[in-house]
Amino acid sequence: MLRSCTCGDLRIDNVSQNVTLAGWVQKTRKMGGMTFVDLRDRYGVTQLVFNNDVNEELCERANKLGREYVIQIKGIVSERSNKNANIPTGDIEIIVDEMNLLNSSAVPPFTIEDNTDGGDDIRMQYRYLDLRRNNVRSNMELRHKIAFETRRFLDAENFLEVETPILIKSTPEGARDFVVPSRMNPGEFYALPQSPQLFKQLLMVSGFDRYFQIAKCFRDEDLRADRQPEFTQIDCEMTFVEQEDVLNMFEKLMRHLFKYVKNVDFDGAFPRMTWEDAMNFYGSDKPDIRFDMKFVEIKDLTTGYNFPVFDSADYVAGICATGCASYTRKQIDQLTDFVKRPQIGAKGLVYVKYEQDGSVKSSVDKFYAPEVIKGWLERFDAKPGDLVLILCGEKRKTQKQLCELRLEMGSKMGLRDKDTFAPLWVIDFPLFEWDEDSQRFYAMHHPFTMPNPDDISLLDTDPGSVRAWAYDMVINGVELGGGSIRIHDGALQKRMFQLLGFSDEQAQDQFGFLMDAFKYGAPPHGGLAFGLDRLVSMFAGLDTIRDCIAFPKNNSGRDVMNDAPSKIDDAQLKELFLELNLPAQD
Amino acid sequence: MLRSCTCGDLRIDNVSQNVTLAGWVQKTRKMGGMTFVDLRDRYGVTQLVFNNDVNEELCERANKLGREYVIQIKGIVSERSNKNANIPTGDIEIIVDEMNLLNSSAVPPFTIEDNTDGGDDIRMQYRYLDLRRNNVRSNMELRHKIAFETRRFLDAENFLEVETPILIKSTPEGARDFVVPSRMNPGEFYALPQSPQLFKQLLMVSGFDRYFQIAKCFRDEDLRADRQPEFTQIDCEMTFVEQEDVLNMFEKLMRHLFKYVKNVDFDGAFPRMTWEDAMNFYGSDKPDIRFDMKFVEIKDLTTGYNFPVFDSADYVAGICATGCASYTRKQIDQLTDFVKRPQIGAKGLVYVKYEQDGSVKSSVDKFYAPEVIKGWLERFDAKPGDLVLILCGEKRKTQKQLCELRLEMGSKMGLRDKDTFAPLWVIDFPLFEWDEDSQRFYAMHHPFTMPNPDDISLLDTDPGSVRAWAYDMVINGVELGGGSIRIHDGALQKRMFQLLGFSDEQAQDQFGFLMDAFKYGAPPHGGLAFGLDRLVSMFAGLDTIRDCIAFPKNNSGRDVMNDAPSKIDDAQLKELFLELNLPAQD
Repeated sequence: MLRSCTCGDLRIDNVSQNVTLAGWVQKTRKMGGMTFVDLRDRYGVTQLVFNNDVNEELCERANKLGREYVIQIKGIVSERSNKNANIPTGDIEIIVDEMNLLNSSAVPPFTIEDNTDGGDDIRMQYRYLDLRRNNVRSNMELRHKIAFETRRFLDAENFLEVETPILIKSTPEGARDFVVPSRMNPGEFYALPQSPQLFKQLLMVSGFDRYFQIAKCFRDEDLRADRQPEFTQIDCEMTFVEQEDVLNMFEKLMRHLFKYVKNVDFDGAFPRMTWEDAMNFYGSDKPDIRFDMKFVEIKDLTTGYNFPVFDSADYVAGICATGCASYTRKQIDQLTDFVKRPQIGAKGLVYVKYEQDGSVKSSVDKFYAPEVIKGWLERFDAKPGDLVLILCGEKRKTQKQLCELRLEMGSKMGLRDKDTFAPLWVIDFPLFEWDEDSQRFYAMHHPFTMPNPDDISLLDTDPGSVRAWAYDMVINGVELGGGSIRIHDGALQKRMFQLLGFSDEQAQDQFGFLMDAFKYGAPPHGGLAFGLDRLVSMFAGLDTIRDCIAFPKNNSGRDVMNDAPSKIDDAQLKELFLELNLPAQD
Repeated sequence: MLRSCTCGDLRIDNVSQNVTLAGWVQKTRKMGGMTFVDLRDRYGVTQLVFNNDVNEELCERANKLGREYVIQIKGIVSERSNKNANIPTGDIEIIVDEMNLLNSSAVPPFTIEDNTDGGDDIRMQYRYLDLRRNNVRSNMELRHKIAFETRRFLDAENFLEVETPILIKSTPEGARDFVVPSRMNPGEFYALPQSPQLFKQLLMVSGFDRYFQIAKCFRDEDLRADRQPEFTQIDCEMTFVEQEDVLNMFEKLMRHLFKYVKNVDFDGAFPRMTWEDAMNFYGSDKPDIRFDMKFVEIKDLTTGYNFPVFDSADYVAGICATGCASYTRKQIDQLTDFVKRPQIGAKGLVYVKYEQDGSVKSSVDKFYAPEVIKGWLERFDAKPGDLVLILCGEKRKTQKQLCELRLEMGSKMGLRDKDTFAPLWVIDFPLFEWDEDSQRFYAMHHPFTMPNPDDISLLDTDPGSVRAWAYDMVINGVELGGGSIRIHDGALQKRMFQLLGFSDEQAQDQFGFLMDAFKYGAPPHGGLAFGLDRLVSMFAGLDTIRDCIAFPKNNSGRDVMNDAPSKIDDAQLKELFLELNLPAQD
């Protein structure tokens, strides 16, 4: 080794030991006849001291070190007179008596500090330097730890990690596949997996009993802020289980991760909420329950007073913001602007201030007498000093708007602390969702999801109301994962494909091997998948998943560091039996 | 859970407990008024008993169970009168009082037994059934365990697992890339990584210090028996290390795996052998040293006796097979045929039998007097009863032939026991190898390999003799992994690219981001990668890596189970700005 210990190792107990360190020059300071160098590696920073009186030549060389030079030094550990309580090595320094320059460095294009002066674009272009920053690297350390603890937990629970293929068959259902031309099979393509779903179900048919995989998945979608073309799932499946068993197992995994990675314990079981309640009380299938502020419906209390806006709406509901009656006109205007933004799309916002003196003040004073409004306040369980905010319109649409307003108020009121974690199981998802455009049902989860046996009779008469044995884990309003009990009966699976509008030929072509497998003793099974990227970003308190991926791509799917994707040469295309057919240039 | 315990759990201590089991019907036997069913799951087999006198209807249903039906039963654990010492549950059976059919099964196309009646093709087509066989599944369990123990070891040694991208930039150097057309970047392609080499070096530049990843890698090569288009590497890299540190770390990893996975301990350090010695004594850079039988050169003892075959050969050498002088004419003819096979390509085989009575008998008696031949035997350190086998010709070519002969003799003599493990480090690989066809040097390992500093002066004068700081781990003649200390100096890296015939533009285009990274304080670093598939197949005593991959592809790169690759529709091609240009059909 080019070092006897790391830059994070040395403490007061090591004083007078001879050591060899290697690392990067974080900074140098010249003070009188002394030169101080902060030497950095992954494990910490250690102060080096060069004394001009003792070794002028060495000190001169130290003065010439630039930022990010790589050096190896030998010296003796010494107690610092001026201790630094902020770092674990702050009690000591190294009196250097030998220095080897291992590599020099050009001046980096941005500072290698937690608060860098580099913007997003340049940091991505020089990602290898960005990763040198402690806060960026620590996200990767966290990711390693979460993945490792996940494996430790699942291994102890008898789950086998099985690698499923990356070069698989393309299936048009679902999102768009990335495809890979096969040179050996002219005109044919592999697809990259959007998830290992079919393979994990096959492994259950194979009797693997408990499977998991931390698996790369791929989707060729137009990238939104928080999407990456490749992402990672903690993918799990179990045999001979019911929904309750799956929820219990993965609640236990989540507790394990919070305990061993963040030292957070949860009291009691994770709460559970039906999808219907989640929509009605929070306007979202992933409610942030760090704070309450549930929706309250008041349609019945608002009709018949000649206020056309409420009268014509099929849904009138609001939230009660505790202690916010003191909001100024300007603050309320800001909230009104917020809900009227095109992304949210409300027509307006009605407020009721329940003043400290018991009086009420509202934007709809003209239409409703104080006693009527007090009736609303009662239903909201509002207290003097509270502010009630009301939206109205078509039910599901208004619930979504109200959800945004509720989250905004939660943020404004400081109720969404990143170090508080409020886990939740959302259950009883609908099996299907209706798509207006194509006038057909789609599987809300995927076509392999088991209908709730209590609702099977509704499959033909009222498919939209059939509940699925499907569930999501939500923490702080983020969907971290979800899954379902799967159909293991070939006949029921066939019926599902029919309900989803697949012809027999389509079903056979795309999922024939799964249907075939189901003929040979498929056991009851179910599972789920967590998004590792989201899980890490939640643990790290990050706003995007990009910051917890070592080499992410930008919104055009481009790696700006190594400039991928790129052109390939004609010979390579020819070998793949392909020709480009590019859009005309304007 | 649909069971209270698994089919592998119950022992004599559980007698008289009420249990619920679920699993697959392995077989049913009717004996008098009793029906016995072997119920199987991943964990074992438990015998179920149905008594016609007690419950005729239940027994009747049991009689109708087919192979691979999935059932759930409830019953009481009972001591068997007729115990089965071959299985851990053999002391007990379950007296069944309730049975639920969870799924039926068509008759499987082959028997689900360790020794199945299914051929390779049908087993691959129904891989999900093949994976039900204990011996196939146990390979996957072994794979899980090796991967898990690898992570446990490396985590404890401060290695961080970092996921590097699967969609990367295509580089023409090396094997052929699989490419992925980018819809969002018309006419451009990602490549799938042949290894994470460049990314792991960048992570060292980033100061990650110790990195690993169990990583999927891809090569679009014509598949030989033991190649797969996608395979898995244990990929590792360390900073501030010399070759010795890397060898020590990964020798320790290998000891850990053998200890925790196979309960095998090794005495003493793993032996090391230079590449030169490996070639000269074993004719291979991956010698099987479970047995000795080193090559012995006798050119000098054979010239001048008018035997034109030896006289015209620049290399005459052989091996001594202890105790094989009794080989019959037929056995020796078989060996001669073996070395003359086109895959090996020797012109012939010379033998010398050192008879028990001290006389010699040889196929070249006509040319060499017994005293001369005894001189050879002396050099071979042969004893009466031994057989010496000799080949001659061009040196490297003959060494390869002799290597095959040595391995064949090792197998015939029972010296290659699959449960004996002989690890070896092969070191001092040449930096370059000369390619006759293209009349240029290629990097034997890869272009980032550090030349041995002692040989730097030879880079310009005699590149072929420059040794690299490169190393392979070999066990039982299988190269399990290899790596090198890397170049961390930009100028030296540039010189390497020049020596390898890259123009500056080519080097910049393909590896520009790595060269750029090296400008900003790249530390000394090195590492290696193990082939996980090979490692598992060695641990499992398998002949091919295919048997330790859950869903392997065949020699045409095809997954015969789900029929990938496959055609994609025109709309999809159009979206990717591609057209097919298929070869004309005959």
